Amino acid sequence: MSAPVEFFFDFASPYAYFASLEIDSLVERLGRQVAWKPIMIGSAFKASGNVPLVDQPLKGAYSRRDWDRLARLMDAPYSFPDPFPVASLPPSRAYWWLASRDADLAKAYAMAVFHAYFAENRDISKLEVAADIGVLLGVDRAELEAAAQDSVWKGRLKDETEAAIARGVFGAPFFMVDGEGFWGSDRLWMVQAWLEKGGW
Amino acid sequence: MSAPVEFFFDFASPYAYFASLEIDSLVERLGRQVAWKPIMIGSAFKASGNVPLVDQPLKGAYSRRDWDRLARLMDAPYSFPDPFPVASLPPSRAYWWLASRDADLAKAYAMAVFHAYFAENRDISKLEVAADIGVLLGVDRAELEAAAQDSVWKGRLKDETEAAIARGVFGAPFFMVDGEGFWGSDRLWMVQAWLEKGGW
Repeated sequence: MSAPVEFFFDFASPYAYFASLEIDSLVERLGRQVAWKPIMIGSAFKASGNVPLVDQPLKGAYSRRDWDRLARLMDAPYSFPDPFPVASLPPSRAYWWLASRDADLAKAYAMAVFHAYFAENRDISKLEVAADIGVLLGVDRAELEAAAQDSVWKGRLKDETEAAIARGVFGAPFFMVDGEGFWGSDRLWMVQAWLEKGGW
Repeated sequence: MSAPVEFFFDFASPYAYFASLEIDSLVERLGRQVAWKPIMIGSAFKASGNVPLVDQPLKGAYSRRDWDRLARLMDAPYSFPDPFPVASLPPSRAYWWLASRDADLAKAYAMAVFHAYFAENRDISKLEVAADIGVLLGVDRAELEAAAQDSVWKGRLKDETEAAIARGVFGAPFFMVDGEGFWGSDRLWMVQAWLEKGGW
């Protein structure tokens, strides 16, 4: 069986949110699975010299407009969150803890975190909010809160981030298909083509 | 008749080159025309805080790989030029001079300039090369060389660049459809959708 397509993201990335709504159905239709991998995009930005989109003149205003029109086109629930961006450490650590126990549950959790931030304007940088989201999926609040503050899962998130950067990941969303990297939600068509053709 | 779709670019942008191979057929199929508008992307980068892709860690290596695979996928003649990037002032000024006399000839000239740089590895920052390209299209060498050094056409390129930045253009290629901006060759699908739907 082929290795899964890797989906690298930060929970605070609007483009990653939009990609998250499509990546599984796109990849699974072609007989592959998707491994969801939250990382700390701020660290990737440091490595690549990038800065958050909304802090850039011209590009910042363009991006906000682009997110709005993408949401309308996709009919996706979306409102620009406040505060933005946030450091999404609690849910990212909680994700890796959940993934060590139940990959499907972890993915459902990740989808719910994206939804909480981009559709419900909940501040996912807060431990309490990260836990609320887990509770709705049947996860024990105390266990999740402990995991999100545990050095094991802090370290895991750091390791995953460093490993991703070492492999060339510099933004979010970023996809890896059999070692080939694709950056951006507007490259899903190319991920699909790469899968269909087995590269070119 | 509707206003033309505007295609802002710098002759030294690989993504603009790839877009140049598709934009006219895409837009004309939908009953509209394309106005080609070379600008000095370095000035737009100064306004937006952007830096050339190849100078960015991680992103630079990714971009070179991406251009190669895009060219293979599109079956487009392409080799990474050396030197890269270049200041494409002579052909940009020559373009605006030609456009004031014959829009179709100017567009043919622009296509030939892209081809010279990205398919034939000719240094389009040189006045002589900019003139060689014109001569092949029947343009008088002395006239083109004079225009490319004339303060009128230097000023026109500067004005077009400043006007583009004032309207939000921060990179290349950049498209404007009835005031709506789209950045990047991977947004041609969205330009098409916007034209088809009349916005959304």
